[in-house]
Formats: sequence, structure tokens, C-alpha cells
Amino acid sequence: MDDAAFWRELGQQLRVDSIRASDAGGSGHPTSSMSAADLIAVLLANHLRYDFEHPEDPRNDHVIFSKGHASPLCYSMLKAAGGISDEELLSFRRLGSRLEGHPTPVLPWVDVATGSLGQGLPIGVGVALAGKRLDQLPYRVWVLCGDSEMAEGSMWEAFEHAAHEQLDNLTAIIDVNRLGQTRETMHGWDLRSYADRARAFGWHAIEIDGHDVDAINTAMSEAATTDGRPTVIVARTVKGKGASEVENLEGKHGKPLSDPHKAIEELGGERNLQVHVAKPRGDAPPHKFEADHAVPWPRWGPDDKIATRRAYGEALAALGSERGDVVALDGEVSNSTYSEIFAKAHPERYFEMYIAEQQMVAAAVGLQVRGFRPFASTFAAFFTRAYDFVRMAAISRARVCLAGSHAGASIGEDGPSQMALEDLAAFRAVHSSIVLYPSDPNQAASLVRLMADHPGIAYMRTHRGATPTIYSPDDSFEVGGSRVLRSSDEDQVTLVGAGVTLHEALKAADQLGEQGIAARVIDVYSVKPVDEDTLRQAAGDTGAIVTVEDHWPEGGLGDAVLAALADVEAVRVRKLAVSTMPGSGKPEELLREVGIDAGAIVSAAQDLVRAPAGAQ
Amino acid sequence: MDDAAFWRELGQQLRVDSIRASDAGGSGHPTSSMSAADLIAVLLANHLRYDFEHPEDPRNDHVIFSKGHASPLCYSMLKAAGGISDEELLSFRRLGSRLEGHPTPVLPWVDVATGSLGQGLPIGVGVALAGKRLDQLPYRVWVLCGDSEMAEGSMWEAFEHAAHEQLDNLTAIIDVNRLGQTRETMHGWDLRSYADRARAFGWHAIEIDGHDVDAINTAMSEAATTDGRPTVIVARTVKGKGASEVENLEGKHGKPLSDPHKAIEELGGERNLQVHVAKPRGDAPPHKFEADHAVPWPRWGPDDKIATRRAYGEALAALGSERGDVVALDGEVSNSTYSEIFAKAHPERYFEMYIAEQQMVAAAVGLQVRGFRPFASTFAAFFTRAYDFVRMAAISRARVCLAGSHAGASIGEDGPSQMALEDLAAFRAVHSSIVLYPSDPNQAASLVRLMADHPGIAYMRTHRGATPTIYSPDDSFEVGGSRVLRSSDEDQVTLVGAGVTLHEALKAADQLGEQGIAARVIDVYSVKPVDEDTLRQAAGDTGAIVTVEDHWPEGGLGDAVLAALADVEAVRVRKLAVSTMPGSGKPEELLREVGIDAGAIVSAAQDLVRAPAGAQ
Repeated sequence: MDDAAFWRELGQQLRVDSIRASDAGGSGHPTSSMSAADLIAVLLANHLRYDFEHPEDPRNDHVIFSKGHASPLCYSMLKAAGGISDEELLSFRRLGSRLEGHPTPVLPWVDVATGSLGQGLPIGVGVALAGKRLDQLPYRVWVLCGDSEMAEGSMWEAFEHAAHEQLDNLTAIIDVNRLGQTRETMHGWDLRSYADRARAFGWHAIEIDGHDVDAINTAMSEAATTDGRPTVIVARTVKGKGASEVENLEGKHGKPLSDPHKAIEELGGERNLQVHVAKPRGDAPPHKFEADHAVPWPRWGPDDKIATRRAYGEALAALGSERGDVVALDGEVSNSTYSEIFAKAHPERYFEMYIAEQQMVAAAVGLQVRGFRPFASTFAAFFTRAYDFVRMAAISRARVCLAGSHAGASIGEDGPSQMALEDLAAFRAVHSSIVLYPSDPNQAASLVRLMADHPGIAYMRTHRGATPTIYSPDDSFEVGGSRVLRSSDEDQVTLVGAGVTLHEALKAADQLGEQGIAARVIDVYSVKPVDEDTLRQAAGDTGAIVTVEDHWPEGGLGDAVLAALADVEAVRVRKLAVSTMPGSGKPEELLREVGIDAGAIVSAAQDLVRAPAGAQ
Repeated sequence: MDDAAFWRELGQQLRVDSIRASDAGGSGHPTSSMSAADLIAVLLANHLRYDFEHPEDPRNDHVIFSKGHASPLCYSMLKAAGGISDEELLSFRRLGSRLEGHPTPVLPWVDVATGSLGQGLPIGVGVALAGKRLDQLPYRVWVLCGDSEMAEGSMWEAFEHAAHEQLDNLTAIIDVNRLGQTRETMHGWDLRSYADRARAFGWHAIEIDGHDVDAINTAMSEAATTDGRPTVIVARTVKGKGASEVENLEGKHGKPLSDPHKAIEELGGERNLQVHVAKPRGDAPPHKFEADHAVPWPRWGPDDKIATRRAYGEALAALGSERGDVVALDGEVSNSTYSEIFAKAHPERYFEMYIAEQQMVAAAVGLQVRGFRPFASTFAAFFTRAYDFVRMAAISRARVCLAGSHAGASIGEDGPSQMALEDLAAFRAVHSSIVLYPSDPNQAASLVRLMADHPGIAYMRTHRGATPTIYSPDDSFEVGGSRVLRSSDEDQVTLVGAGVTLHEALKAADQLGEQGIAARVIDVYSVKPVDEDTLRQAAGDTGAIVTVEDHWPEGGLGDAVLAALADVEAVRVRKLAVSTMPGSGKPEELLREVGIDAGAIVSAAQDLVRAPAGAQ
């Protein structure tokens, strides 16, 4: 059998196995797999360089199914490459199987979870950046894209960024099967519309018949030898190719075939071809950035007034000097987030992502695929732009550190569009996440170091304005910790804050003290996980708690405290939060206006202390 | 003074006033305003048709500052048009002023809040869609875009969609001033790079010198007379134009000038030109879609097993027959969300947004600018893609209805990428939002009708699987309501659920009853606002509450219940939620696996009842 004949046979096997897996699983997307089968067959047999016995080999190429619903094809490919058995293939979508409905990294050959469309290509940009600029290895990144997902703006962020970074190690393959879930795509089989867009964005584009294995082979060779820019292969394909029950028909998306046996027969029956995938090139190890200790760890004294965002930037630069695996990304606001300090100290490890937050988080996910520890920063409000990417990063079991600056109404004059007032809720509701909210520069710096070791999504919220230094540079903090800043045996009420509201709570405690009300003050700098023991102790000691946060009332610090005390009786909690839409104004004016300044805390504490326990 | 001379003078006035406003406010973006001043001058003086005394006139054009940080220019324009006084102009960014740091609709001439980049153009697509397909009026939509924001993928969703819909009533004006916040953009003054991209996406593109008023005028005329496709004017401009202190210099973004007097002198001093803006065309009223009552309100009987997503679709179609202002959008999953039922009944009011969730929510915001009641639907998980647009919609004081289907682990085989497990937290933390979570088709239908009347963001979470019908079609529900489904004087514990978990709670109550434990069951179908009275009553009566939700533990139904009981003593709450990352499996297997099925509820209730009150 010559090469082309083998590729054709392999394509048919991938189709048959996609049908079999979907049939065994009782659901899935066989037709979306069948359209791309020849593309994957040629890639696997003649272009991919990957040691399937050693998926951790840093020299391996990367294959990302951006159209994650083509998981039957992905798993059929893994079977053909010797990664999984036929028996495992048929466990598709069953409880406990590694072969989930959409690919996830519970399989060692899968880099990232896909299934939310428009994410695989931007993540591929991150992996390709790692190859070019960090690992400095010749591995290639191949991304299989659906035509429907080209409507997602994140794909065009990826096109823009990949061209700007001249990522000629990246190849996108668009499976133009014409049909979406409910109808034809906007462009149908107009390959030119995709190619023209890609070319305008600076890519090399090749239009082919996606079932002509020789054309596929030639295009992939051309992609691999094109210098200075990424290549997109725009492949005209047929959804459900080869099975008369479904081929090129609407209404056949996302379900098993009703007569799989007939389809398998039409496709020439079951096969068991094994592909000896080419091993990765060379034996050079990945480039390592050594610790240089050039930037000393920052320390602030009791008289310093420093914004936590600035402390973040200084600590990140120092961490970069301690650890060569730390890298930074920013969404074109590095002089606001202070990631510019890292950029100046370690320019080779700084990635400017311009105003493209989705691409920024995706790139961070791609960089951590190769073991780097990315810290991505922008205004906390603008991480909402990338929330789907954060959600999916958790499913990817990714380790990424995200720092959002300018949190809350306390930013002042810029107004509500720039105020993150939902970030604590959003990030708490991410699996594997930690949510840190420092109030002081020494604390912020200490937490930056902890973020890099968190095996999941680490989020830090920083604030805009300069605030007093409370802690010593030698104080230590921990994920899940808190600090009790005021405490006595006579405490009648507990004030719980973090960030700017901690400073308001301290002022309030002073004012309450002058009125003869002893108040405990707790800094819950770790909003998730929150320090249950300390909060429960305070609940038991004082019976009354005021929480205060520069955030909407829902899902933030107050709700975290309430959750920690869910089964504690005999405690009353008053939650202070931003309850009206802020406008512009001076920070202190806005804290008063929205009801989270020291005065509001004092009033709430007085109410709680004066109301007899048990009264409603 | 001839036209061109007037336009030039007006441009200088807009620059001077931008500098004055920023100086008075002590912050702001004068340089980003100055680059676009000539563009806005010519638009205002010779192309815009707008009755500034009647901003509510349906025939008015629409001007959207997608680069919202150019708010000083926006407000200077309003002054020149007679909307605001010079005194108000100088109130910029002060507490209580309508002139916030970034534009919001507290000003009657501002359609929507901007300031999160990349949103104005997609929203403009929505307004233009309203003009073409709903109002059927000749008003035009003019969107001023920044060059930096062209890196946002959402801009390209807008380019794609506007061309597909042939929106020749839409003009984008890109202010290519070359400089972002910290550096040059990816394309600098390479106008061609923007124009080529736009042309590849199907737009008419015109490249001009953005300070040549004649060229601007010609381009705007050409835009207004180009049929069948939208036009983009790509204008080369100079940031800080005309003031030597800042002109074309890096490091001058987002701050007042240090010597405003010198700059104003260089610009020829203060002026007080008033523009007599052309009145809107014609006197035809907007097209009205009449109620046709063709689709009867759906009713389900006690033996029906129907998924709430299907009830959503049927009710929406019926609501569309009751109200001509109701319109629907979907992200190419209308046969999953069942918005296809509306699409079939009211094709002229259905908008297919393909897989572009940001554009979908933005279009909904644009449609409601013109008074329509948009219902936008996709998988609940994929609303995370548009979270920044939802956040900004709240700042826009927009009225939009969003319906997310396939919520939670109970979707089963498709796996975690398709499971919304953070949507309740995300939507609770949106200002003005209501969060509804029906468990039954009659209830879902009733809530759809309520959504249309909510003056803010109305979110409904629907589930995938068919569930029993609990309620009668004549039962009534309300925002902030709940239903007590099991209750007795002997209740020892309260079970609180919604959606699929309500059905598990009912099963659990039966099992507990067999064990001699009387359990109250509450359906909190309104998660925000939540029915505090009923929950507090249950807390008082039973002292023990189990909440159960198909959602991560943070920020959802359980936290809503805890917040309602924050200051109630003598109640212990056990929160059941999805605590491990689900894989694939059958729905009932996954509910068990993640710990939210009837068995888990029974165990939690037993624990609470058996543990002596007060014991920790």
C-alpha cells in the first residue's frame, strides 16, 4: 500500500471508529469527526512528530482539537497511534472513562480541555509562543478548527496575535464542512472568504479539498516550511463524509448514526491500522531561564504608602529573578497593573497581548502546557471578558496566575466600566481556584510567591490607590489564612474586610473603641479558601460580625464568610457591600456613597451590638 | 466662514473643551479625544441627523463612542450641539455629575455605557439591526472606534455580522492615532492593515487623513450612500493633535495636560460655536409588530415530562404573539435552547447570531436601545463568554432577557465544558439582575412572561432533561417568590432546591418521611431576589436547612439562602453543591457522583437532625 492509499485507509478507519465510539457512548458528534478524518489521517501519518509513549517529552509536537466536539476523531486518532485500546475507545462518554464527551487532559496526550468553541486556536498561540520564545525548540503546533467557530472573535484575536508574533510553528486547519448545528454557516463552502480574512490578518493561507490526501499532504509540508508567518489550511470537507445516512445533510449534528452498521459497511468495514508516528526532532533540551537574583525581594516599611498593584509588579519582577519558569502577560495596561516592572527586568519572558483579554488568558493556558508559570494581568473588570477561558482553564487543570487591578468603586473617577465589582464572585465560582485580596504591599508580595505554587487557578485582586503598610516584610501569609489585627477578651463585634475595606474596618474599630465598643478586626486576605477556624472563633467570641467589601453584595467576601459560618448558630452577620451603581467621584467620596466606608461599618456594628441577641 | 472652515474651528473647539473638561475633572483622556475631534466635528455639523431636544425621537441617528475613554470629546460634542452647558461640561468626573469618566445613559443622548473596549461596535450592530429589520427607519448608526480596540475579537464578530446582515446603515470610524496606553499598536499608522481586514470581512473601507475635514466629509457621504454593506472609515490621526506638550508622544495617555493654558492658546483659544444639527429624516413612525395571538400560551398537565428549556421556547413563542416588542436571538444552538420555536413562529423577529456570544449579547443591548425586549439564548455555560457584555449592559441600564440552557452536571454525557456550574454566581453578581431557575414547564413559562417586564438584566437558567410537571398552568409565580411544596407543623428540617435539584429534594423528602423525619421542601425558583420571608420562617420553624444546587458551591443558590439568613440565629445550614470536577456519564450517575442527588440530601438532612442543636 503506498502512502496515499494508507492515508485514505486510515481516514476511513478514523471515520469508522468515530461512528463506533459514538454508537457505544449513545451520544457524540460522529459527523463532525468524519469531515476531518482525512486531515487528521495525513497529519498523524506523515507530519506529526510525537512520541506517544512519552507525552511529556518537551520536543513533541502539539495537536489541539479546537473543535472539541470532534472528540470521537481525537480518540480514534489516539487509538491509531497506540495511545489507547479499542476497548477504551468504546468506553466513550461513560462514567469514569478518560474519554469524556469533549477532550480533557485526563488523557496524557491532550494538552487542554476544549468544547467551548474558539479556544483551541488562541491556546495554540500560547503553546507556539512557548516553543519560539521560551523552550526554543522546533516543535510544531497543529490546531484543528471548525468552520462554525470562526464566528468567535477569539479566533481572530488568535489570527492577529499569531501573525504579529510571526508564529511559523503554528498551523491552523479549518475543517470547512459547511454545516453548523442548526444551519449552514455564514460562508458555507466559500473557502475564499476564510482564506482572504486570514491573509488580511497576515497569515499564509492554502485552500484545498480536505478529502484529497495528496493535497492535504502538500499543504502540510508547505505549512511546515513557511517562514515568518503562520499557515492556515482551509479545507473543503463534507460533514458525515462517506455515510449516506448523514453525508452533507442538515439535522445530523451531534448524534450517533441510526444505522451504524450500514455506515461502517459503506466505509469499508472496521480496520485496525496502527500508525508509527514520527518521533520528535533532535535531542536538544528546552531552553531554561536561570534564576538570576538580580531583582531583590521588595520590602516596605511602616511609613510606606503603596498600592497593592504596585507591590504586585515589584514582587513579580523579584519572583522572576528567583524562578526561571515565571513569565508574565498583560493586556496593554502594564503601567497600570505594574507588570511593566517585570517586563523591564525580564523582557524575554514578558508577553504583550495588547487589548485582547481572551487571547491573553488563552496564551497563559498555552504557556503552562509547557510547564511555565504564567502571571497574566489587566484591570480586574476586564477579566470578565475572558471568563469562559478561565472556566475552561479549570477544566484543563491549568495552573495560571491572574492578577486584576483597579478593583472596586475605590478606583474613583474612571467610573463603573472600569470598576471590578463582580470579580470575587466570578473567581470564587471557578473550580480549583484560590482568590487572594491583599491590603498591604508586604502581604501582596508574599501572596504573589504563593500563587506560583498553586496547582490551579490563582487569582489576586489588587487595588488602585496607595494604602498604608500594615505588615512587616517578614510576616508570613498562607493560602486559606487570615490575620486578626485587633482582638481583646471584651470584643463585642467582629469586623471582616480585605483590601481597601480592611483599612476602613481599622478606622471603624478605632471609632467604635472611642465609643466603648470593642471590635475585633480580621483581614480575610484569602477569600477562597477562607479561614473558617478564625471566623468561627470570632463568631463564638463576639456573636456579631460585619463584613465589608468593595464588590456587589453577591458572591464575594461576605458570602464567603457566611458560607464558613453556615452551620454556626448564635451569630448574626451584617453584610456591607456596594449596593448602588457608582458614578464617578473621588475614591473616598465613592466609598461613602456606596456604603462601605468606616462610617457605614460603625453604624452597622452599632446596630448589631445594640440589638439584643435573638431579636430579629 | 465656509463649511470647511467651520468644521476646522469646531474641531479646535472640541479639542479645547476636551482639555478644559479633563483639567476641571483632574483626570481623563484628552489626547484620545483630540485625535478624533475633526471626525466628530464633521459628523456633527454635516452628517448626523439628530434632534438633541428630543433624544427619544425614534428617527434619530445613533452615535456610539466605542472608545468610551474619549468621553471628553463626547461631552464637548454634546455642548456644541446644545445638549449640555459649559458649566456642566466642567463638572466632568465629579461626584453626582452626569458626565462620568466614561459615557453612560444617565445622559439622555447616550445610548449605552462604553469604556470596556470592543463593545460599542457590536452594540451598534444591534441598533443597526433594529433600524433595518424592526423599526424599518432610515436612521444611521455611527460608531467611533479606537485603533487599540481593534485587537478585541468582539470587534471582528461585529465586522463579520454586520457584513452578513448587509448593514449599510452602519458606519464605523476608526481613529487610528497609533498610540495605545503604553506603546504603539500592532499596526501603527498602517491604515491598509485595518482596511484590508475590513474588506476581507465584506465591508466597504475608506482610508483618509483624519484631520482633513474635506476628506472626512467625502468619506461620510460615501458611507451614507453605499448600499448593501457597512462602511468603515479608517482615519489616520494624531493623538493629542494640536498641543505640543502631548502631540504624537508616548506616555501621554489618560491624563490631563500639565499646561492646559498653553495648549488652549496653541489651539486658538476657547470658542463657543453652536451646531445646528440636522433634524432626522421624514416623519414615518417606526414599524410596529402587532400582537397576533397566533401562538396560544402553553399549558402542561400533571403527566407531562418536559424540559424547562423546551417550556422556555414554547412560552417565548407565545409571548411573541402577545407582544410585538419581543424579539429573540440565539448563538446557533436554537434547537437546543428551543428558541427555534420562536424563530418559526416569528421569523421576522428572530436574529441568528451564529457562534458569537459576545455579539449576541451586544446585539440584544442594541435592540433594547430602540425599545425592543430581546431574549437571547445559548447554553448557560457559554454566557460566560459574554460576561463583560452583561456587566456593561447593567451599567447601560439595559433591559435584556438572557436564557441559559443545559445548566449543571445533570446534562450528563457532554462533559464539563458544556455544563454551566458558575452561571448563578456570575449573574447574581450583576447589578439590576434577577436570576430565575424553574423546575417545571408551567413555572418556566410563567417566569418567561415576568422576564419581559424586568427593568434590568433578567436571567433564566433552564435544564436539559425532561422533568415532571409539578405546578398547574394556572399557578402564579413572582420575581422574589418561592413555593413551599411540603410543609407540616412537625417539620424538623427544610430542603431548599430549584431546577433539577428540587426534584431530588422532593424524592429526599419522601425518603426522610419513611424514616420518620418530616422535611419541608422549598422551591426557590427566584434565586435573586430570594424569598427571605419564607426562608426565615423555615429557619425559625425547623432550625435546620439543607440547600442543594447543580452548581459550584460558591455564589449560587446556597449562598443566596445564607445571605437571606445572615442575621438569623439558631439555624444551621448545610450546603450541597457540585464539589468535584464532573466527567461524562448519565445524568443520574453524575448527580450521585458530584453529591447532589436525593441520597446526598437525605444524608445531609439526617446529619443535621441527629446532631444536637448547638453542637459544632
